[in-house]
This record gives sequence, C-alpha cells and structure tokens, in this order.
Amino acid sequence: MLKEITTSQNIVRYNGQSFFEEEDDIAVETALTIILDGKEFATMVCTPSEWNELVVGFLASEGVIRFYQDIESLHIDEEKGFAYVELVNKHCIQKDFHSKRFIGSCCGKGRQFYFHNDMKTAKTVMTKLTITPEQCRELMKKMQESSSHFQQTGGVHNAALCTREGIVVSRTDIGRHNALDKLYGYCIINRIPLKDKIIAFSGRISSEVLLKAAKIGVGIILSKSAPTNLALDLAEELGITTVGFIRGNGFNVYTHQERIQGIKSDRLTSML
Amino acid sequence: MLKEITTSQNIVRYNGQSFFEEEDDIAVETALTIILDGKEFATMVCTPSEWNELVVGFLASEGVIRFYQDIESLHIDEEKGFAYVELVNKHCIQKDFHSKRFIGSCCGKGRQFYFHNDMKTAKTVMTKLTITPEQCRELMKKMQESSSHFQQTGGVHNAALCTREGIVVSRTDIGRHNALDKLYGYCIINRIPLKDKIIAFSGRISSEVLLKAAKIGVGIILSKSAPTNLALDLAEELGITTVGFIRGNGFNVYTHQERIQGIKSDRLTSML
Repeated sequence: MLKEITTSQNIVRYNGQSFFEEEDDIAVETALTIILDGKEFATMVCTPSEWNELVVGFLASEGVIRFYQDIESLHIDEEKGFAYVELVNKHCIQKDFHSKRFIGSCCGKGRQFYFHNDMKTAKTVMTKLTITPEQCRELMKKMQESSSHFQQTGGVHNAALCTREGIVVSRTDIGRHNALDKLYGYCIINRIPLKDKIIAFSGRISSEVLLKAAKIGVGIILSKSAPTNLALDLAEELGITTVGFIRGNGFNVYTHQERIQGIKSDRLTSML
Repeated sequence: MLKEITTSQNIVRYNGQSFFEEEDDIAVETALTIILDGKEFATMVCTPSEWNELVVGFLASEGVIRFYQDIESLHIDEEKGFAYVELVNKHCIQKDFHSKRFIGSCCGKGRQFYFHNDMKTAKTVMTKLTITPEQCRELMKKMQESSSHFQQTGGVHNAALCTREGIVVSRTDIGRHNALDKLYGYCIINRIPLKDKIIAFSGRISSEVLLKAAKIGVGIILSKSAPTNLALDLAEELGITTVGFIRGNGFNVYTHQERIQGIKSDRLTSML
C-alpha cells in the first residue's frame, strides 16, 4: 500500500473579517528515485500513487524501455521512495545524452524536437478515429468528475485515457507529466490498444504534454486549457488532433480537424 | 529584441452549435539551451522574454553562481535559442551531481531536501516583515492584473516581486519555475534587497516553488492556489509564511502565521 495522497493539517482561514483555525486536506508530495541497474537514474516529486505505472511510463517516455518485458524486475520501496529497476538488457545509454538538445541539420524544416529522447520515442499517429463535439465535451466532463475528491485539495492534474464512450482509466498527480506517465505505464503494462483512444487532460497542452501523447500513441488530446505554439507545430507534424478550451458548450480545434465530426461537412463561417 | 511572446494562428472554434474559423492568440514556447564554459549545461522550454534574467536566475538556483559578478560574460543568441555563459571561476562541479538525490543521515529529522543543489542554495529566511490581510488580497489582485494581456492566451504563470505597497516587478512564463527564475535573475542583476519583499504567484505552491522562494530569500509567498504538504514542511523549516487560496475576500495561512497582522492579536475561533 502506498502512502495516503492527502493529509489533514491545521491551518488558519481568513474569511474576510476574522481568522479561524481549521483542519484542511493538503495534497501529499513525495520524492521517488529510480535506481536503474544499480545506478541512480532520476528523482521526481510526485503524488504517492500508482508508482509502478509511473516508473514504467517514465522509462518508456525516456526511451529506456519499449515494452513491459524489457524490465526484468521492478521493486518499489514505498517507505523510502525508491524504485529499483533491472532491465533484461542492461542499461548502457549514457544518461546525460537523454536530456541533450537535438540540433537538426535543416533549420526549421525538420521536426521541432528539442531533446534526443523525444526524437527516438515520439511517434507519428495515424489513427482514423473521429469523435463528435458532444463526445469532446462529455469526456472532459467525465475526466473532471473522476478525480473530484482529490481535486478538492487544489491544483492537482488529472489525465484520463478514454474511448469515445467513456473513461478507461484516470490518473492524478501533483505533476502534470507524472499524470501522463502513469497513463503511459498503465497502457504498457496492460498492453492497451491505442488506435481508438483519446486523452483528456486537465492542464495546458505544452510541447512536453503533446510529446507524451505522441509517445503513448493517441490521436486526439482534449484539454480545458490552452496549447502553446510549439505544441501545435508538433501536433501538426505528428498527426495529433488538439482540442482546447473545452468550457461550457464550446471549444477550440487547433490541429488535424479531420478527426472532429461535423467540421468537414459544415461550411465554415469565417469570422476573420 | 527577443521574439514575440504570442503568435496569431487560425483555429476552428465550436460555439456549441456551429464551427467558425477564427484567429486566436497562442503563447509562444521556445527552447533555450545554456552553454556553460563551453559545455551544454541545460535546455529549458520557456517564453521568449527576459532570457538574461532567466539564465542568471537558473544558474543561481542550481548553485552555479551566487552573485552577478560570478559571471564573466553572458551572450544570448535569441534567434537560435542559446545562452553562452563564461564564469569567472570555471565551472567544475559535475553537472550530474546537481540533480542527485540527497539522502540525509537522520531520517525524518533533517531538512527534507531531495536534491543536493537545494541543500546548498535554499536559505532560512529571518525577515521580520509583516503584512495585513488587505495587503495579501491587494497584491494578489495586482499580480493578476499585471499580466492580463498575456494571460488571455491561457495557462501562463505569473510571479511578482512585491513590497507591501505594490508590485516591484512582474514576470510571466509558460513554465512556473521559469517565471520565478526570471524574478530571481532580476533580483541578482539589480541587487534588490529582499527583507521587505513578498512573492505573489499564480500557481500552486509545490516544494520546488517553495524552494525557489527560499533561494530568492523572501519571507512571504502568496498564491491563489494550494500548497503541497512537502512545501509546507519546507516552509515551516525555512521560516517562510505561506498564504494560499487567495480568492474573493478570504485566504488560508499555512505556515509562520506571525507575519500576518491580526492573527496573533485575534483570538482564534476554532471551527474544529
């Protein structure tokens, strides 16, 4: 059993006039260090839940493993916050290389990857999956509801792996990337087919978030928030549909609109 | 001149009934690689503004420099996204060491630092500065107003260095840590006294955010969002007042309440 993900703490609340002592739920943040083939590989601060998925997803995201079978053993010391991983083929890639900047030879023409590990792991997504506007809104709503208890502590991120019909699995973490890495780990461990999957995410679509979606292999990412221009450039190139600002009844479609039903058939009214 | 921080892009908006083509402002996200004494040190993705401050703040936060004078030269290639830094005393700390986990000898008793560089750079803050509840709310309001234009693109973080009376300087970035590193760089470059300063921040108070505040050296951090338990443990120990959920007229005070005027004199009404 992992530790509790929230903890109760006495705080002082100000209501605009007076101070009151109260008990409040606070999100727990813990360090997890991955020891890979006997060597310290990385330390992340995260919510103490689904650490096996987090470790598997993180290693896949970093290009260290491709399949769950690449791992010979995975032992987690929950008390101390360590994950001991032994690979079938011992890890030999220089760790430092992973975060090195990738500098392409053809400026502005190649893919805009900034890190070598992304070059290696982010896939172009080819799925023919399409969804309706109503499904976009419904999935975002379900994603938000799925973590309502933990979200009351404030400021945690939630990522849900969905089909068009609903949520397959939902993961929460204080770190945006961790929530996505947990989903990735879940997919790898359980060999989840991804052609019919969608990710609904509570945070912004930054380049790192977009790259995670490409690594996982989903063709559609839904967010209640905004994307960055770099994320959109990558989405365009990697074949991913980005839908943002899903709020109330509306939303914005930024890239690969062909997966949103109704856009092609609708005659777009230009407001420019 | 750095690049634009927002860019205009054609998107498809859905209003609940129909699709419209529209022009939208998107936040620009760019990679910046720091070359330290000729060697690649780190690459960050960030908003292309105040890169000199970002580089100085980041290097100080990592414990590479303490003063602006520790830098012999700083040249930024804005077009390609590189910062070339030469130190007065050439950099000899093994880069890898910085992100290594610090494992204290006395479990649960020592400071809960997870990284060696934090051990080295996070200071205990001793300031006697106090503020009123009204000032807490006013500073949060001013911080939010200070980046209203850029915030309309959605999901950027804003950090403001304040006195009790108002904002000294405000910095925005798509990355939460970057916004704080820019503030830190500003303080180092301009030798800003910190005893009377407060940080107002748009995001959650995670352990990393709290440690940045301690490194900068401010005694009070204000946020409209929630803290984590690890951040609160660190705040308690490093002498930092944390105020969260500043919304409407109210807020929560989590640590070092002695800096909030009215709490000591007020007889706390327990709602437990």
